[in-house]
Amino acid sequence: MLAIRLDRGAVLLRHQPKPRRPAGFALIRLLYGGICNTDLELQRGYYGFRGTPGHEFVGEVVEADTARWVGQRVVGEINLACGRCDWCVRGLGRHCPKRTVLGIVKHPGAFRELLTLPERNLWRVPGEIATEHAVFIEPLAAACEILEQVRIPKGAQVAVLGDGKLGLLIGQVLHASGGEVHQYGHHKDKLKLAADVGIDARLARKLPKGKYTWVVDATGSSEGLGTAVQMAQPRGTVVMKSTVHGMVAIDSAPVIVNEITLIGSRCGRFGPAIKLLKDRRVQVDRLISDVLPLQKAPLAFRHAVTPGALKILLQPR
Amino acid sequence: MLAIRLDRGAVLLRHQPKPRRPAGFALIRLLYGGICNTDLELQRGYYGFRGTPGHEFVGEVVEADTARWVGQRVVGEINLACGRCDWCVRGLGRHCPKRTVLGIVKHPGAFRELLTLPERNLWRVPGEIATEHAVFIEPLAAACEILEQVRIPKGAQVAVLGDGKLGLLIGQVLHASGGEVHQYGHHKDKLKLAADVGIDARLARKLPKGKYTWVVDATGSSEGLGTAVQMAQPRGTVVMKSTVHGMVAIDSAPVIVNEITLIGSRCGRFGPAIKLLKDRRVQVDRLISDVLPLQKAPLAFRHAVTPGALKILLQPR
Repeated sequence: MLAIRLDRGAVLLRHQPKPRRPAGFALIRLLYGGICNTDLELQRGYYGFRGTPGHEFVGEVVEADTARWVGQRVVGEINLACGRCDWCVRGLGRHCPKRTVLGIVKHPGAFRELLTLPERNLWRVPGEIATEHAVFIEPLAAACEILEQVRIPKGAQVAVLGDGKLGLLIGQVLHASGGEVHQYGHHKDKLKLAADVGIDARLARKLPKGKYTWVVDATGSSEGLGTAVQMAQPRGTVVMKSTVHGMVAIDSAPVIVNEITLIGSRCGRFGPAIKLLKDRRVQVDRLISDVLPLQKAPLAFRHAVTPGALKILLQPR
Repeated sequence: MLAIRLDRGAVLLRHQPKPRRPAGFALIRLLYGGICNTDLELQRGYYGFRGTPGHEFVGEVVEADTARWVGQRVVGEINLACGRCDWCVRGLGRHCPKRTVLGIVKHPGAFRELLTLPERNLWRVPGEIATEHAVFIEPLAAACEILEQVRIPKGAQVAVLGDGKLGLLIGQVLHASGGEVHQYGHHKDKLKLAADVGIDARLARKLPKGKYTWVVDATGSSEGLGTAVQMAQPRGTVVMKSTVHGMVAIDSAPVIVNEITLIGSRCGRFGPAIKLLKDRRVQVDRLISDVLPLQKAPLAFRHAVTPGALKILLQPR
């Protein structure tokens, strides 16, 4: 079968045997994979990564211990947790210290024709959700994670910095949950996608200082955090959603003087994301920039870093 | 009268006329001033500061609009707020956007024989508190601010990084409020002060990773924040108490992956601090390294940066 491999910056195609399916795991045929900024960071050396990336996917179960999974269209939570530690017992397997992570830490990713995941990680994709839209469940869950971490009052103004793939999902999630979202970005065409679903989208030229109680940094840039801190009110909260490889320089003085709270935010539960898509409260169709065959992954990765690109999907033949 | 002036790194002595007392202000004769790390940062150029520093003080009221203040032994909250904006109305004058700050921002500090502060900033020092101990009310309030920002459950383990003046006060405040404090530092003699009041004091050699739900960075060092993040558990909280001049480089990845919350923390209300000192629940006597006359301020500032030093007090003749 065909698998993508990242190795010191290169995107390689490999022919590999079908993966072994351990007990409790499902063998899944890839339908679509989505390229995330984290994949691009992995390509650049984040985590010293070498191997098969891919953690956004929708697939069809080919084999499983539990018969009812076979033939189902599924997505999967990406943290493979031990299921027994204190974190897992608290329902926070995504912080399990023994976890591996699909396509990121010690478990080969989804950018291959067949992949494996524990059955307990799987979610059935409801019939109302188109297959290519289901790829967005993972990043949408990451956007929804914000709502699990902070309680934003209905009607509160929230600045979302960034008009990339994740930023646009976050804007929609916060908008759907009742926030008055101000989405800031540098790309008119991307901001239009936000504006078209009713979000107040603004070109990030002169950014207001000290204005917002809630700011989300989804710029994906090392400067985003400092900008977000500047835009926050005293005692305000900045949600950190930009995974940046390497050190980030921040001026800690305004954080301390204004008593800003910074909250790191990563993966989320799939349930709320599936519900948002099923209820059509979030639009993802226009976030798909291109669908390319898996064997064109090197091109797809190049395409994904171009300024105009949003989500690039990979599809086996 | 004698006043200290910081100017591009130098600590200068100046003879000045007695300050004018605006309406609503008290004229206060300095009894003791305390040198804080922020004063040392101001000396290094923080805020582009030039002028009279000093925000930790105890004094005696010489003149005031309200007769009952005259002759009283007082301390004073350091933020001179407008009293009318939304922040002030919420009791958060220390975040008033129009504020000046005693000895820090546009209001000459306490390191002079006579100073002025609005009467509404003053707190009477109860008879149970020795005059030289009252100097600690301001930094103790900054330590108490942590309890206003986060709710640390009784018996929870809290790592306090740093065994300096502020670190030792924070350790005592969290210990007094029911936390199981682990105080980490590099100075055996300073850690002994913590141990002597019942705190678990530890030499900061090999620091445990991912251990604490609560970590306070009071190292005063630009590396302290990164260390604190490493010591925090997933979903843990790091309180930022190190005022460092300039940019701080942090690795944002562990903050995001472990979903750490970072909270900047600055000044606090004086009430809780006065109560702790009055009830003798915090010991400050052994934190005084030296008492020097105001005219020896240049020596006092040099003394304050030596590794063994804790609080240096300044006293007019």
